[in-house]
Amino acid sequence: MADRQADAAAAGAATVDAAAVLRAARAAGRTTLTAPEGRLLADAYGIPTPAEGLAETADEAVALAARIGGPVALKIVSPDIPHKTDAGGVRVGLSSAAEVREAFPALVRNAAAYAPEARVEGVLVQRMAPEGGLEVLVGAVTDPTFGKVVAFGLGGVLVETLKDVTFRLAPASTEDAESMLDGIRAAEVLRGVRGGPAVDRAALADLIVRVSRLAADFPEVAEIDLNPVFASPDGVLAADVRIVLGDGPPPQRRQYSEEEILASMERLMRPRSVVVVGASAEPGKIGHAVLRNLLDGGFDGAVHPVNPKGGTILGRTAYRSVADVPDGADVAVFAVPARLVPAALEEVGRKGIPNAVLIPSGFAETGEHALQERLVAIAEKYGTRLLGPNIYGYYSPWHHLCATFCTPYDVTGPVALTSQSGGIGMAVLGFARATGTGVSAIVGLGNKADVDEDDLLTYFAHDPHTRSIAMHLEDLKDGRAFVAAARKTVREKPVVVLKAGRTGAGARAAGSHTGALAGNDAVYDAILRQAGVIRAPGLDEMLEYARALPVLPTPKGENVLIVTGAGGSGVLLSDAAVDHGLRLMTVPDDLDAAFREFIPPFGAAGNPVDITGGEPPATYEAAIRLALRDPRVHALVLGYWHTLVTPPMVFAELTARVVAEFRAAGVEKPVVASLAGDTEVAEAGAYLFARGVVAYPYTTEKPVAALGAKYRWARAAGLL
Amino acid sequence: MADRQADAAAAGAATVDAAAVLRAARAAGRTTLTAPEGRLLADAYGIPTPAEGLAETADEAVALAARIGGPVALKIVSPDIPHKTDAGGVRVGLSSAAEVREAFPALVRNAAAYAPEARVEGVLVQRMAPEGGLEVLVGAVTDPTFGKVVAFGLGGVLVETLKDVTFRLAPASTEDAESMLDGIRAAEVLRGVRGGPAVDRAALADLIVRVSRLAADFPEVAEIDLNPVFASPDGVLAADVRIVLGDGPPPQRRQYSEEEILASMERLMRPRSVVVVGASAEPGKIGHAVLRNLLDGGFDGAVHPVNPKGGTILGRTAYRSVADVPDGADVAVFAVPARLVPAALEEVGRKGIPNAVLIPSGFAETGEHALQERLVAIAEKYGTRLLGPNIYGYYSPWHHLCATFCTPYDVTGPVALTSQSGGIGMAVLGFARATGTGVSAIVGLGNKADVDEDDLLTYFAHDPHTRSIAMHLEDLKDGRAFVAAARKTVREKPVVVLKAGRTGAGARAAGSHTGALAGNDAVYDAILRQAGVIRAPGLDEMLEYARALPVLPTPKGENVLIVTGAGGSGVLLSDAAVDHGLRLMTVPDDLDAAFREFIPPFGAAGNPVDITGGEPPATYEAAIRLALRDPRVHALVLGYWHTLVTPPMVFAELTARVVAEFRAAGVEKPVVASLAGDTEVAEAGAYLFARGVVAYPYTTEKPVAALGAKYRWARAAGLL
Repeated sequence: MADRQADAAAAGAATVDAAAVLRAARAAGRTTLTAPEGRLLADAYGIPTPAEGLAETADEAVALAARIGGPVALKIVSPDIPHKTDAGGVRVGLSSAAEVREAFPALVRNAAAYAPEARVEGVLVQRMAPEGGLEVLVGAVTDPTFGKVVAFGLGGVLVETLKDVTFRLAPASTEDAESMLDGIRAAEVLRGVRGGPAVDRAALADLIVRVSRLAADFPEVAEIDLNPVFASPDGVLAADVRIVLGDGPPPQRRQYSEEEILASMERLMRPRSVVVVGASAEPGKIGHAVLRNLLDGGFDGAVHPVNPKGGTILGRTAYRSVADVPDGADVAVFAVPARLVPAALEEVGRKGIPNAVLIPSGFAETGEHALQERLVAIAEKYGTRLLGPNIYGYYSPWHHLCATFCTPYDVTGPVALTSQSGGIGMAVLGFARATGTGVSAIVGLGNKADVDEDDLLTYFAHDPHTRSIAMHLEDLKDGRAFVAAARKTVREKPVVVLKAGRTGAGARAAGSHTGALAGNDAVYDAILRQAGVIRAPGLDEMLEYARALPVLPTPKGENVLIVTGAGGSGVLLSDAAVDHGLRLMTVPDDLDAAFREFIPPFGAAGNPVDITGGEPPATYEAAIRLALRDPRVHALVLGYWHTLVTPPMVFAELTARVVAEFRAAGVEKPVVASLAGDTEVAEAGAYLFARGVVAYPYTTEKPVAALGAKYRWARAAGLL
Repeated sequence: MADRQADAAAAGAATVDAAAVLRAARAAGRTTLTAPEGRLLADAYGIPTPAEGLAETADEAVALAARIGGPVALKIVSPDIPHKTDAGGVRVGLSSAAEVREAFPALVRNAAAYAPEARVEGVLVQRMAPEGGLEVLVGAVTDPTFGKVVAFGLGGVLVETLKDVTFRLAPASTEDAESMLDGIRAAEVLRGVRGGPAVDRAALADLIVRVSRLAADFPEVAEIDLNPVFASPDGVLAADVRIVLGDGPPPQRRQYSEEEILASMERLMRPRSVVVVGASAEPGKIGHAVLRNLLDGGFDGAVHPVNPKGGTILGRTAYRSVADVPDGADVAVFAVPARLVPAALEEVGRKGIPNAVLIPSGFAETGEHALQERLVAIAEKYGTRLLGPNIYGYYSPWHHLCATFCTPYDVTGPVALTSQSGGIGMAVLGFARATGTGVSAIVGLGNKADVDEDDLLTYFAHDPHTRSIAMHLEDLKDGRAFVAAARKTVREKPVVVLKAGRTGAGARAAGSHTGALAGNDAVYDAILRQAGVIRAPGLDEMLEYARALPVLPTPKGENVLIVTGAGGSGVLLSDAAVDHGLRLMTVPDDLDAAFREFIPPFGAAGNPVDITGGEPPATYEAAIRLALRDPRVHALVLGYWHTLVTPPMVFAELTARVVAEFRAAGVEKPVVASLAGDTEVAEAGAYLFARGVVAYPYTTEKPVAALGAKYRWARAAGLL
């Protein structure tokens, strides 16, 4: 086996062999490789497979079995029978010549009964895997969004039922592969259970890397399925290699450099001059609402209405054509019917305006793909970037810009929000206004004919106002570009993603286990995680995380301490902490003793620290000070209980004061609070939120979920 | 095997044998049965096990193997080696005499090395299970809350990693057992995957029933572990039977009949006369707050302060002792220090007051178990029921009763709420007030020295004001009584449970796989499900479900239709529907055509029905009418998108009007709405909620979660 791997390391020669095998299969019009062909590819990439040989007669099988030694398996070989087990084409555990002799004709008979037309090339005689190996799956598939991805999970007959599988972009690094071993639910099995031995993790990770390279090297390899792979302490062995061929990669979208993206985005988000194509004097028209919002929103640059009738609209001179507007405009907002867009876009391009914001609908979303492609072609000709079409527009509050037909929004702050859908955009706007969330951008993306999430991520990463980013998306036009942009951005600021359509797509038709497992959402989920984004399970969470993340300082370690006035809240806060991947610190004896000095004897130190419900403000304050002062505590979860002794606003004031005092002294720890009490706790929550403590009334889950999101980001950004 | 099962059916004789085996093992001071003993019990209960025999020498093993025929397994037999595999005490797949002869001494050597002191009784020679059987686990364990429970799940070496297991109370019925087969994640494997055969479900269910009976028949059987059980199309075979002995059942709490419970609860919740023990004239004292709340809350019965100093408190004559108050009081609320409670409780008992509400803390929760037990003894002597101790009190708004030191609450309605913790009680109160939730009861349960959830369930089931029940609990004092009461209640009204402490308990030390899997929460989760309650994942959901459930009519079928103005909301609503176990109906062609008649051509019929964002109120109204009119649609999810054409309150008004019109005509379907828009949608949501449409702003998840909870209840109540 070592020899074979050494061979593959000299990859030049190896890939030539592999390419020849693939060419031959395609020349023969086949989309599934035979087992011997799969074996050749495996050999070329140093993928360990059991000793085996092809027998065309029972005599040959018996001779091969004797040569291989040990118990063997017999498997029918036919390009027309992809699932051998279903066809009765597999016998395992044959340890005598008599058994092999009897099995050979039986398999051939079964195959003929199952698929009378099938061409049977013989029977594979294969050494059985060693006893006690764990059955895992390693595979690869071409994902429509992310291209080649490699899969790893539990294997064997339960594979499609347990769906315990994870994915990474191919080719995968050794580090990626190692993270996959820890990325399945059954991860602990690989480390050995009930005193059993651990599998050879290095060999397994190496196998994943090799399979990912094989997939990445050949666009026409659509699916690879190694199942089962027997993983044992002594190494790994792929008992079955299944390879399905398909088409090459899909066409690429046009790529822009980071400099190009930043240059146009800067002008989009901080324009000096905006043109409104289709501005209208008639209230109720979109072209009227857009112009009015630009003016009412306080935009202090130039605004040029364009309307073929000319005249004056909302007190501004209207130009009859884009060609007539003064030079130097940064953005043209379109509010004309779809059919009029191409001609106007030509004018925008000729005028050198770098950004066209296409509010109109009636393009790809209504089946008008050709019309949309026409826009893309025009835009590419002139280097114009397109936002939309089919959007509500966008907001850039720091620059007083409301280029939208919705109502203006002017609360500036650190949160950048994008949505693919207009309805979700309205929910984002309403939520922001209801919670007073300070916003750096709200952007509608719609059909994403051109500008998409990776352009915005690139801009937001550089935008000094933006400190958290939340994106609602239904698809990605270029999954790999998104991952690249997200990885860069996540190093600087958290990115929250709400991926809609989790459950709708269902499993796709697939020719392999890996293909069947690579349902739309399973791949999205694993790859988004790999990109380091925080995936929000729903709209609520996306909005709350986006709002809370910039409020919380970054934790410097994993030790989370709960301090609660209500034992009952402490239990629920602990549940929530575990749910959200937080580690409740084991409180050191000296810290424990320090708490015990001022909490009542029937309270509880440990974690949660239960200071009990009847305590005065001084006890809350002492506990918070102790937790903030101790460098071993990295984050604090407070469970407040409304009592007459410590009313809500007293608690809020003291907490905000102490937190501010420590922050002023350079001690920055995330503090979140759950407020159990009568309606005054709502005011207390708002007071705390505005002062850097993420606090919510009537819930134990939300503050902990927000802290959990902060931790997920800090880990993804490599800060923990 | 058929014979053996017939034997067991004559259970009288069989259980005598089993009892003798258990007596002998206990007489020998053992807590683990040997394999042969386990086999005897299995035989007595008709649990099929493979042909086997005990060999004391290698020669005996060879002879036994020959007699049994086929490949055999050898397993060391020692009462001191519970985990044979860990000890190297198992060899499988031995098909020749030579292999058996070699294996015997090797096993004995391994056992000696693993546990030098172990008494080795021999080696079990056992026929190997047939190829291709699925490995499952059937077991039983004595749960501290629910007593004997039976377990079923995936078996084999992955059992503790995958934790794919479910539980039911033992003994289990055949129906219970069948529901267990569908209750694991891997349920579909049992039905056969990839064309593989299904297992013999009847045999497997029968095995579960038999194991549950064995567990139930013998209190001293603490754990039973059949792992693996090979389940195949031809039947089931328990390859390994492991039985651990323990103590008998824990002492029972005193049981009251339904009549007794209702009699005292009626007087608790609808009292004519209330005594306040420890009433105080001093503001800030609990005894003052309780009396003030009773008076301010508008209670129109008699209120009698008791204070040793006598005099007048808040304008009422104070009695020096409970003995002095007028006869006929229904409730005595205690607001005295813990140490004074026993003497006062004696007086309450002597006075014949049926309910003592114990606000004071300082009992079991602070380690004062003896003091609490004294209260229970006094109460049982007089037949007084105890609420608490360690509670905030309780509210019975329909009777204007606020027997609590918290602030009064007087919004009457259908929701009954209980909490074990005071802090959570305050959150419940605050949430109710903030949302204007109409309440039939808020009850603090605290230490549950006596009255607990099953008493309240029994009362709420009969209370005509209560239409939904939500309970926060950290433990159950009598799990079986809870299940019995919940099952009865759920037939009438939904019960939502927030079980806190899900993640804290961790796995208990256990001597079997089943024991290790029966972590506190796994059993709670399965048994609460079996009881038909809706388990809320967090406090938020408990409160929202409790509020929403009485608003929604019960659906008459599983067909859920989404009608949305925003395509983006439609996708998220579909995700949420699948998450919450709803079935999106396949829209029949004629209904689809009917929708297409009035939605724009670029909208989408199907499900979701996307009427598109620019539509006027008439389109929403037509779509809602169509969905309500068609009897094939059973529930409606609306996705509203705020536009100038159809503003929020216009949508809310038309929706409420149409829903009311249909309800007046006898068409009652649950309708929920997600409102995406600017802040006016909050008002629209409140308007709709008050008119029978469960609507929330800025979220797609909450309305669907509420509908999901309604469906879960309807299914549990047998209405679907």
